[in-house]
Amino acid sequence: MNTAEHKPLIHAVDAVAPDADLGRLSLREVRIDTYQENVAYLHRDCELYRAEGFKALSKVEVRTDRHSILASVNVVDDTHIVAPGQVGLSKDAFAQIGAKDGETATVSHADAPASIGALHRKLAGERLTTEDFHAIVHDIAAHRYSKIELTAFVVACNRDELDREEVFFLTEAMVCAGKRLNWHEPLVVDKHCIGGIPGNRTSMLVVPIVAAHGMLCPKTSSRAITSPAGTADTMEVLARVELPLDELQDIVRSHRACLAWGGTAQLSPADDVLISVERPLSLDSPGQMVASILSKKVSAGSTHLVLDIPIGPTAKVRSMPEAHRLRRLFEYVAQRIHLSLDVVITDGRQPIGLGIGPVLEARDVMRVLENDPRAPIDLRQKALRLAGRLLECDPDVRGGDGFAIARDILDSGRALAKMNEIIVAQGSKAFDHNHAQLGPLSFEVSAPHAGVVTGIDNFQLARIAGLAGAPKIKSAGVDLFYKLGDEVQADAALYRVHANFSADLEFARHACQKSSGYTIGAANEVPHAFVEF
Amino acid sequence: MNTAEHKPLIHAVDAVAPDADLGRLSLREVRIDTYQENVAYLHRDCELYRAEGFKALSKVEVRTDRHSILASVNVVDDTHIVAPGQVGLSKDAFAQIGAKDGETATVSHADAPASIGALHRKLAGERLTTEDFHAIVHDIAAHRYSKIELTAFVVACNRDELDREEVFFLTEAMVCAGKRLNWHEPLVVDKHCIGGIPGNRTSMLVVPIVAAHGMLCPKTSSRAITSPAGTADTMEVLARVELPLDELQDIVRSHRACLAWGGTAQLSPADDVLISVERPLSLDSPGQMVASILSKKVSAGSTHLVLDIPIGPTAKVRSMPEAHRLRRLFEYVAQRIHLSLDVVITDGRQPIGLGIGPVLEARDVMRVLENDPRAPIDLRQKALRLAGRLLECDPDVRGGDGFAIARDILDSGRALAKMNEIIVAQGSKAFDHNHAQLGPLSFEVSAPHAGVVTGIDNFQLARIAGLAGAPKIKSAGVDLFYKLGDEVQADAALYRVHANFSADLEFARHACQKSSGYTIGAANEVPHAFVEF
Repeated sequence: MNTAEHKPLIHAVDAVAPDADLGRLSLREVRIDTYQENVAYLHRDCELYRAEGFKALSKVEVRTDRHSILASVNVVDDTHIVAPGQVGLSKDAFAQIGAKDGETATVSHADAPASIGALHRKLAGERLTTEDFHAIVHDIAAHRYSKIELTAFVVACNRDELDREEVFFLTEAMVCAGKRLNWHEPLVVDKHCIGGIPGNRTSMLVVPIVAAHGMLCPKTSSRAITSPAGTADTMEVLARVELPLDELQDIVRSHRACLAWGGTAQLSPADDVLISVERPLSLDSPGQMVASILSKKVSAGSTHLVLDIPIGPTAKVRSMPEAHRLRRLFEYVAQRIHLSLDVVITDGRQPIGLGIGPVLEARDVMRVLENDPRAPIDLRQKALRLAGRLLECDPDVRGGDGFAIARDILDSGRALAKMNEIIVAQGSKAFDHNHAQLGPLSFEVSAPHAGVVTGIDNFQLARIAGLAGAPKIKSAGVDLFYKLGDEVQADAALYRVHANFSADLEFARHACQKSSGYTIGAANEVPHAFVEF
Repeated sequence: MNTAEHKPLIHAVDAVAPDADLGRLSLREVRIDTYQENVAYLHRDCELYRAEGFKALSKVEVRTDRHSILASVNVVDDTHIVAPGQVGLSKDAFAQIGAKDGETATVSHADAPASIGALHRKLAGERLTTEDFHAIVHDIAAHRYSKIELTAFVVACNRDELDREEVFFLTEAMVCAGKRLNWHEPLVVDKHCIGGIPGNRTSMLVVPIVAAHGMLCPKTSSRAITSPAGTADTMEVLARVELPLDELQDIVRSHRACLAWGGTAQLSPADDVLISVERPLSLDSPGQMVASILSKKVSAGSTHLVLDIPIGPTAKVRSMPEAHRLRRLFEYVAQRIHLSLDVVITDGRQPIGLGIGPVLEARDVMRVLENDPRAPIDLRQKALRLAGRLLECDPDVRGGDGFAIARDILDSGRALAKMNEIIVAQGSKAFDHNHAQLGPLSFEVSAPHAGVVTGIDNFQLARIAGLAGAPKIKSAGVDLFYKLGDEVQADAALYRVHANFSADLEFARHACQKSSGYTIGAANEVPHAFVEF
């Protein structure tokens, strides 16, 4: 074959190493929040950009003397954003690399994350090993996956693609990728709900009840991501929730409990990254849900967990066989990971309580704690039952006695006293629920005709409260006046929407016009409650 | 229940429409190339940003008097990028909306694309209808899917998730989402290769041969996406390839053929969007490949297609049963969509020809056309066989005669004459392959010991050529001196790498150090050629 015109031979193995200066650029923060995806901005005229790999979306490694991160490339034509010779990093990425503007960094082709082979095997339908899951979760927690790769992983693990042992591997890997708290006590209790029911703030009642009984209950919660309020958002109306880990541990040691935001604690960090693609897709497969919840609980040092699975036509779980399948999966993984688990299937046909939104939900919680006659009965009853189940984890409590003990703690004011203790310890916000400032702009939605409330759409009411500003605007949300089975007159106000800004109010009004979320019908059309709880 | 303190009732259905001014912002181009994903940049202090939906990654609709697009939100803290009161759009998005900087636009919550329900059903493992695929593909072509949604669709359709009728539905929907050319002739021929083999530039030989025979062959090709040269990149060395659709049609009418870039023609535009996530994942499932290729061909007005499926240890298809499965799927869909298809399974054990990269490949092609003794035999033989198969679509050609007719057209110089005609018609670049300017920086990779070439890794050689700058740098690439089965001496140069920039050269050298792509062994270790072709 054609071997003409040879230059002097150079063995590839003898070739010089890439120039030390190759790819040295000046770092610059580009103050764009790209939400859990690292983006590196390179100018189109940057010498480095010409090389094959450096095109839009390709993965590069940006390295300073101390740190290195992976990022996807966006090409820029505006020197106000980055100039040739600079590498811009999106806000999170810049924070991760922990350097200053103008510091020198090298930018090079990133080798694919080590676990990409395992990702491809999962995409090809193969079963993965525990080592595979550790490698994948490690790369995800280190932000080494692009949004496309993350989505591919989440979709490839969707539905029944993970068998139950793989769900255990995933859960364990997620625990290992973050910190793990150790409370040095045999009984550390927690409760959790799989979500989807607005107003379902039972944690803020269960925690003071079981802590008043003496149990250790270091409750760390998430903020709302798509819902109008998480426990952390609602607790924040009453007290500080963003506590440094050592302060949080001090509070728990002194008061047996806390109600704090879990984000500062670096517990199961891969979960937060995965959620960034699961939420926009509304993907919530059983395997991912189990791994997400149980990894957070085990990382937080819990030994006993009561898990609430609400069931109803607009809840996450819509039939009893589905609830039982999910329960079995939770139980299998919990047992493998040495967490004592008690699953309760509850009535998820409608929102719990009356308020939806942080201030409104805090009002409901405080009314229950104060035994106020306006307290929503359903919130009180559900909290007492869940607290009762948790109390029965105490070997000194007889099976069946939990509910009565919980009720006694609540009725006697001991739960309120414990809650006030926790609020003061975390830093009180001096909230008075009897004079709660609700969003000053409001409108009401009325019944189109007389009848009985036969349906309240959890999803639509959460959406309306969200559009009104919750949870970002604490005093925004929806105040319900009627619940399932209540009789209403024509034109009676079904609920009131509160907002702080006219833009928000109009967005919410627009959504109410499309669908109020309420169905008014005949008494015999009220859907059956599947469960006692 | 609690119905105290009612304000005057407002029926939701009577509520005023959202303020006309709500969400009016000033448009601004943000010159960032986000590659097939529309991004809207909003300043954190923008009043609109507070509303629930307007957080990172949520979908908004940006609307001017004339157009409307969907985009994902990135939140910005730098008024140099966008100020409060402005909405920034990434480059592609700004071009799509077709407006000027400073024009007024409204920004509102985007309803989910109409087809998201169908996407969720596919994610849940359901079989989709033809209407579902039309809705999804329509939204994808209109850039209404985020990158996360696109990835979810691609992964949910991966492997065997689509049955063959669904692949047909998808193909048909992709055709319908773009333009469709009609040449008003009964026989419009084309050839296509599924890709993966560097140097495989048979189209530039097959097209002039069959056009010289009088067949209509309006060949539109893609540019390389991950490979070091596509047919359009290589043809661009010789002639203009970016032709407006009417000019392209004139050329085809006058000369029976063209060799142009297909990107301007809006043929199967959803395919280009899907590729933007398939490539980074290296996902190339049979269903997606079939829909991608056949939708492009049918849109281009082809009636007869010869399809080349190379098979080999580093080709896309690695075993004969796999090749046969893929062939059957192509045949099923082609038949449903009324395309006459002839699949040929070819030898994909190594690159075709000697050059890898646009100028080097153009040199090989011109040598074959000119019957130059330095012409690579394998490229010539493969092109003649494919052209022969295509010629046999002519009802006046006897089965079995195609190859001889093709050889006669090539040997007589009629193929060269036709090629020169096409080059002049498209706009000649005056390329002289006998004095081709190759990248001035170069190095050679040598055999570590004497022996026989027993393996050439298609993937690694494509990668090396890409790192050296191909296809962006036309004269960059790899020039092979030995092919499978050739005997080599120790230290003999196996190939030479050409580049224009030292950064590129070093990237390529680095890759060669990791793996040269060549295996030198014993004569009996040369892998078996699965096929005659």
